[in-house]
Amino acid sequence: MTAQPLADAPALAREALVIFTPSGKRGRFPVGTPVLQAARSLGVDLDSVCGGRGICSKCQVAPQFGEFPKHGVTVAADALSAWNAVEARYDRVRGLPPGRRLGCQARIEGDVVIDVPPESQVHRQVVRKAADDRPVVMDPATHLRLVEVEPPDMHEPRGDLERLSEALRRQWGIEAVTAPLPVLSRLQTALRKGEWQVTVALWTGGAGPAVVLDLWPGFFEGPLYGLAVDVGSTTIAAHLTNLSDGSVRASAGVMNPQIRFGEDLMSRVSYAMMNPGGDREMTRAVREAIDGLAQSLAAEAGIEGRAIVEAVFVCNPVMHHLLLGIDPVELGQAPFALATGGALDLEGRDLGLGSVNEAARVHVLPCIAGHVGADAAAVALAERPDLSEDLVLVVDVGTNAEILLGDRSGVLACSSPTGPAFEGAQISAGQRAAPGAIERVRIDPATGEPRFRVIGCDLWSDEPGFAEAVGPGGVTGICGSGIIEAVAEMRLAGLVDRAGLIGSAEQTGSARCVPQGRTHAYLLHDATAAGGPRILVTQGDIRAIQLAKSALYAGARLLMDARGVERVDRVVLAGAFGAHISPLHATILGMIPDVPEGAVRSAGNAAGTGARIALCSVAARREAAALVRRIQKIETAIEPRFQEHFVAANAIPHATDPFPHLAARVALPEPSFNAGGAAEGGRRRRRG
Amino acid sequence: MTAQPLADAPALAREALVIFTPSGKRGRFPVGTPVLQAARSLGVDLDSVCGGRGICSKCQVAPQFGEFPKHGVTVAADALSAWNAVEARYDRVRGLPPGRRLGCQARIEGDVVIDVPPESQVHRQVVRKAADDRPVVMDPATHLRLVEVEPPDMHEPRGDLERLSEALRRQWGIEAVTAPLPVLSRLQTALRKGEWQVTVALWTGGAGPAVVLDLWPGFFEGPLYGLAVDVGSTTIAAHLTNLSDGSVRASAGVMNPQIRFGEDLMSRVSYAMMNPGGDREMTRAVREAIDGLAQSLAAEAGIEGRAIVEAVFVCNPVMHHLLLGIDPVELGQAPFALATGGALDLEGRDLGLGSVNEAARVHVLPCIAGHVGADAAAVALAERPDLSEDLVLVVDVGTNAEILLGDRSGVLACSSPTGPAFEGAQISAGQRAAPGAIERVRIDPATGEPRFRVIGCDLWSDEPGFAEAVGPGGVTGICGSGIIEAVAEMRLAGLVDRAGLIGSAEQTGSARCVPQGRTHAYLLHDATAAGGPRILVTQGDIRAIQLAKSALYAGARLLMDARGVERVDRVVLAGAFGAHISPLHATILGMIPDVPEGAVRSAGNAAGTGARIALCSVAARREAAALVRRIQKIETAIEPRFQEHFVAANAIPHATDPFPHLAARVALPEPSFNAGGAAEGGRRRRRG
Repeated sequence: MTAQPLADAPALAREALVIFTPSGKRGRFPVGTPVLQAARSLGVDLDSVCGGRGICSKCQVAPQFGEFPKHGVTVAADALSAWNAVEARYDRVRGLPPGRRLGCQARIEGDVVIDVPPESQVHRQVVRKAADDRPVVMDPATHLRLVEVEPPDMHEPRGDLERLSEALRRQWGIEAVTAPLPVLSRLQTALRKGEWQVTVALWTGGAGPAVVLDLWPGFFEGPLYGLAVDVGSTTIAAHLTNLSDGSVRASAGVMNPQIRFGEDLMSRVSYAMMNPGGDREMTRAVREAIDGLAQSLAAEAGIEGRAIVEAVFVCNPVMHHLLLGIDPVELGQAPFALATGGALDLEGRDLGLGSVNEAARVHVLPCIAGHVGADAAAVALAERPDLSEDLVLVVDVGTNAEILLGDRSGVLACSSPTGPAFEGAQISAGQRAAPGAIERVRIDPATGEPRFRVIGCDLWSDEPGFAEAVGPGGVTGICGSGIIEAVAEMRLAGLVDRAGLIGSAEQTGSARCVPQGRTHAYLLHDATAAGGPRILVTQGDIRAIQLAKSALYAGARLLMDARGVERVDRVVLAGAFGAHISPLHATILGMIPDVPEGAVRSAGNAAGTGARIALCSVAARREAAALVRRIQKIETAIEPRFQEHFVAANAIPHATDPFPHLAARVALPEPSFNAGGAAEGGRRRRRG
Repeated sequence: MTAQPLADAPALAREALVIFTPSGKRGRFPVGTPVLQAARSLGVDLDSVCGGRGICSKCQVAPQFGEFPKHGVTVAADALSAWNAVEARYDRVRGLPPGRRLGCQARIEGDVVIDVPPESQVHRQVVRKAADDRPVVMDPATHLRLVEVEPPDMHEPRGDLERLSEALRRQWGIEAVTAPLPVLSRLQTALRKGEWQVTVALWTGGAGPAVVLDLWPGFFEGPLYGLAVDVGSTTIAAHLTNLSDGSVRASAGVMNPQIRFGEDLMSRVSYAMMNPGGDREMTRAVREAIDGLAQSLAAEAGIEGRAIVEAVFVCNPVMHHLLLGIDPVELGQAPFALATGGALDLEGRDLGLGSVNEAARVHVLPCIAGHVGADAAAVALAERPDLSEDLVLVVDVGTNAEILLGDRSGVLACSSPTGPAFEGAQISAGQRAAPGAIERVRIDPATGEPRFRVIGCDLWSDEPGFAEAVGPGGVTGICGSGIIEAVAEMRLAGLVDRAGLIGSAEQTGSARCVPQGRTHAYLLHDATAAGGPRILVTQGDIRAIQLAKSALYAGARLLMDARGVERVDRVVLAGAFGAHISPLHATILGMIPDVPEGAVRSAGNAAGTGARIALCSVAARREAAALVRRIQKIETAIEPRFQEHFVAANAIPHATDPFPHLAARVALPEPSFNAGGAAEGGRRRRRG
């Protein structure tokens, strides 16, 4: 960035020492130099939208006075010029916090220490919530820039755009600029209304010329917004994010309307294969849903859609292709070739986004492989396993589990076909995580009696007032985290053996183990007397969970093989579902490798977080692309050992590795129920 | 461009001398080197679409045998390898002309002279029709490229686009590639159908990455087409042009539908000012007309719209802005600021072009100034006054006349508000140039009797069979070139004086000079007896022509002043109207400066020619942009001398400069008719 068109500084020979904190950058400047100019020439990160015209107040600084032995300087009270009329007006109209000066107005009169507060830094850090999260450094692709454009001159008949480009070059160091036609069509009016001052939203996220996404007459304060969108098979989640400070203004999710074409990814691929034009139907559906989401987020936040100038998308490969309008058929068969895996910079109109700024830009994070999508890339960007000192396993649990394993020495990735059991599908009483769904289960090992909690109610089922609190809808089914806890608790209570068989009432001593065909089921909840449902955990349910968790574990194990390790240091559970899983129960089930207590962390919607990081930082987009290139991909479908691991992981817990950490925490009973029903070595746990 | 993936050349130490004609490039190559490879490494302009796979036959060469004293070489009969199977198959299937070889198949065995025929050169010259036209060197922005793409590999899961990019880099030296989503959506199918060979239409017209505009499985021969479009105020003309050889496949014109919003430019600007959204109506109308024109040209040529991958637009500034969707209001008032004057690279969809390839690219030539548009830039590109050894005046006559004056030392440009009189408007019997319009007029100086020709009939009005030939529509009016000839002939015949006054029948001795109000009119044609029109040249018509020609001459004179010259060496009349003007009559009228006989040339639709040149050559686009930057613009509206010249040019001929060349050719009578009607110094020309 070049020097700004500040008011002329008097040319005096006397110089003063200027030290900026927290950067520590220092230099000597002629007395009379504006602070902003000094900051610019030292490369100090001091914001400015108006380019030093005393309008935007983004360049506020806090001069420090007195003795600074550390810096070897004494700052006199008159080290800066007195408040000038511009600062006085700004303070009167909008208020300037005590001790603050406008960097473009205050001039250096003597040696001085100047602190740049975080909110005046362009590249300020946004601290994320969790303690071990790295802060995000703001580096958005789009900035507001106030420019002063030369009026037209009949003797030098350049166009308004050409004079705007020249002004951006001189005043902001922007070498080349283009403007889409809809923006160009508003340029002349804006320049004249703003009396040759105009604020432009300038996108500089690509290698080519900067793009004027929008413009406003005179000074426009913003803020501008972006959408971080995670297009999941089931849910589309979006965060409306302030592009100045990274704060989330509103968040919302909607069901992915593609569900009507198929519950899981492969059934959607099948739909596209079986129905000519089916891929286009699904593309239309998901784009409409995303645009609707953008519209409702803007309405919720009370902003114009026009203020949304960017969007970042993350999604698994099938969602990625359907979003882009590409038939996903190749992703349904070996060798699972992506049409494109690279990061994409698009325009909003390419994806039919009509509710955002008409020139809005879209960035799609890169896919890692045909089975490991941009959502996994976003998880990697949020969790940065490549920066981890210890060996971390990151698992994003969904219909497919994306698994990352690595540390500073390298990262491996694979995808494992867990199927939708973890999302409550293929479970007899299964349902999505919605009010009325059982999400927590405890079974008394002594009595075999359960208690549980349902989504939307804070009480356990054995607490007073539960029936009233749960409301007339009552208990409706069991969701993914609920079935995991149920099976793990059944295993802990000795109602299920290592092979996954449910014992009979006789074998287990629990009347809740009821016959069902040639097998048994566990009666978790019976509301038939009140006309409600009878919720059972069936042998089929346990088989479904076993298949899903075996696939997940086998995937993790395959990466451990490739890495040549028998254990990992810690586990991160990503995804909305991951946030609700009890680490202990997941370990009892054998979903994840055995790690010390406390070494399993939920990262929440890490894909969404990665999308937000990429939205706030072009550097992060580059890092994501570089990271994806470095990640070593393991294709589970062609690894013979995957099948071995899968079979070995069928036991509860798995039979592959020892689990000393788990064994130190819980005592796992070891009954064995054959299919016929007679107990073999079963241990009665009923007391008394 | 890097070396191609030709079949491996055997590594032999023995080398042979290869001389290419007509370039004269020569070099020594190991025996066994394919001719195409030798040509590539010497930078010889030898075409290839298939990259040396013996499919496209674009690299045909004609080896020369025998003694070549000029080159100091003797070429033996076995200087090239014998025909191989690929050439034999090609000859069998498609036919190879006698003496031709495929450059990618024939290998060098001994010293050889190889002629590259014009049709095998990428940058071949397209000879234009007129004798003094410079040839156009083909250098299109879009090329067809056959590439062989690596099949996908599960162990290295890059996407198809990434592997296509890599193949284009290795096989064609293209460093970076992008593909719009609609193209990307067809990539996977095309690659698999073509068994990993695909032909891409690759646009390399910008500074950024190459763009895949379209693709076809396997080898696609083309050709690709482009549209050269001249959007005039009255007519939109388009040429469907073959992008391989520059030939015009079909041409068509339609009326500009904006005429319903205003006949001339200023009335359209007024419409936009008076009617909110009026500019958008006009934008929609012109875009629809252009798209319809594209559709009918494709239909006429029997090609798919998909084959049209580029378009170049030229137009005056108001048409330019309305085409781009920009309100032209600023162009209607000083300082006549363009929204943008630079060359633009757009997508077809930006202009609503739905009948061409969906990824088609659009190039808009730069405007010279707010009154001198991209059409004038196109005229400059076609005529290249900046390359002229002598001083040339180029006049593009329309509602506004664009005027260029210059030679190798520099070029000046201005626009002059001639008004629509030259197009037949504002003339009592005026009409557009259409069948039935009088376009040629001769008046016998002795008798004052006229004869004329009308558009659509080859006979003069005094020739036998005229009445039948002109058909039932008869003579309907007088068009621009007709009125110019009529006035000039009236002046020659002594019926009009130097001031532009028509004499009475008494003063002139011609009964055709009939009273009309307080002035006189000349009866050119009277068909009232047959129920037809009575076509008069009125005093008002002459005033209108005087205003128009004065404006034109004053503009030219202003440029001559700026250049400091009193005369020009030659005049080029551009524009469809210019093609129909008689140079002698234009000089008599004083429209153009006096130049020697034969020094006035009609360049036809030079703007359309310039558009075609830009369509065929990205180098020409760059030259046009550079030329426009170098042209010095003169704004007639603010030059005080324009008014002086305008007044002085009112006389017939003008009173500004001497006209010795004209005087040597014709004797101009010098009557003087005052408004009252009495002859003053009038000279009777009637004989006998």
